[in-house]
Amino acid sequence: MNFLEERILKDGLVKPGNVLKVDSFLNHQMDVGLMDMIGEEFYNRFKNENVTKVLTIEASGIAIACSVARVFDVPMVFAKKSKSINIDGEMYVAEVESFTHKNKNNVMVSKKFLSPEDRVLIVDDFLANGCALQGLISIVESAGATVAGLGIAIEKGFQIGGRVIRNLGYRLESLAIVDSMNDETGEIVFR
Amino acid sequence: MNFLEERILKDGLVKPGNVLKVDSFLNHQMDVGLMDMIGEEFYNRFKNENVTKVLTIEASGIAIACSVARVFDVPMVFAKKSKSINIDGEMYVAEVESFTHKNKNNVMVSKKFLSPEDRVLIVDDFLANGCALQGLISIVESAGATVAGLGIAIEKGFQIGGRVIRNLGYRLESLAIVDSMNDETGEIVFR
Repeated sequence: MNFLEERILKDGLVKPGNVLKVDSFLNHQMDVGLMDMIGEEFYNRFKNENVTKVLTIEASGIAIACSVARVFDVPMVFAKKSKSINIDGEMYVAEVESFTHKNKNNVMVSKKFLSPEDRVLIVDDFLANGCALQGLISIVESAGATVAGLGIAIEKGFQIGGRVIRNLGYRLESLAIVDSMNDETGEIVFR
Repeated sequence: MNFLEERILKDGLVKPGNVLKVDSFLNHQMDVGLMDMIGEEFYNRFKNENVTKVLTIEASGIAIACSVARVFDVPMVFAKKSKSINIDGEMYVAEVESFTHKNKNNVMVSKKFLSPEDRVLIVDDFLANGCALQGLISIVESAGATVAGLGIAIEKGFQIGGRVIRNLGYRLESLAIVDSMNDETGEIVFR
């Protein structure tokens, strides 16, 4: 069991509807020391991928992405979410449909910050159905850049996101993959 | 001239309508080394304030807040923005009216993460009219906690936010205060 799985067991809370609350250390209150351990771990896993840029999406991915970018010594870029497209030709935009909420969101990155030479490590705190991540991949491909890999803190292994992205041939590394949770007993089973 | 003012002159762009674009290093693409310098500078300015928590608001404040929290060795909390209030009694909520957009937004922090013993350093990347910052102050006060200070990267000195917050008696430190900008010449005048 790694440091993140241990922390999830210690401070995570299982709520009805397969909700895993980790807001005391990962996505509302943040333990910066833990972020840095996540950054080190992704560095160890992707250090041979010649990463030139770290990409995430607002908001909670930003903290992890900063810690990852620091170890790689490369810039970090965060994609913005927007309901409305305001295309002025300067943004890469991916329209992403949420499986969960049935609504559409746009994910946007300024064209200035991705180029065909870039090898992009995409990181985020959570992976469930993978909608946001698919948008980020689409944006990297639009820029002619290369997805060097994807690093996720917590993957919900019982939802489809991880399988879809691995099936597409991308290298996806999740530090903790939750295969099942029980909100009555609080039990969490990792892969 | 300090390191942030120098960086603004080097990489910032003045656009019509008093817009200062710093998206290549501060609020879209992020220079993590610069964030860490900002973190160190706020530590030097507020190290005697017994800070127990760093508070910011999504999204771009998160990167700075992580760097600040790391130096203080305290947790970071980011407030969430929402159009709709979903009060379940577990959140501190401040309704904030935007001077610029004339709309109302809610700013929310879980009650779990602020207590009366907390001395909170509020940080953000930008201060213009100060709406979001006023919401954060209101939330800290609602929790019975103390505002230990406010640290801003760039303040637009010609808008009212900074004056309002200093008039209220809070200790507000802005690393770069822009007193005027000229989008035709690109000139930026710091206080």
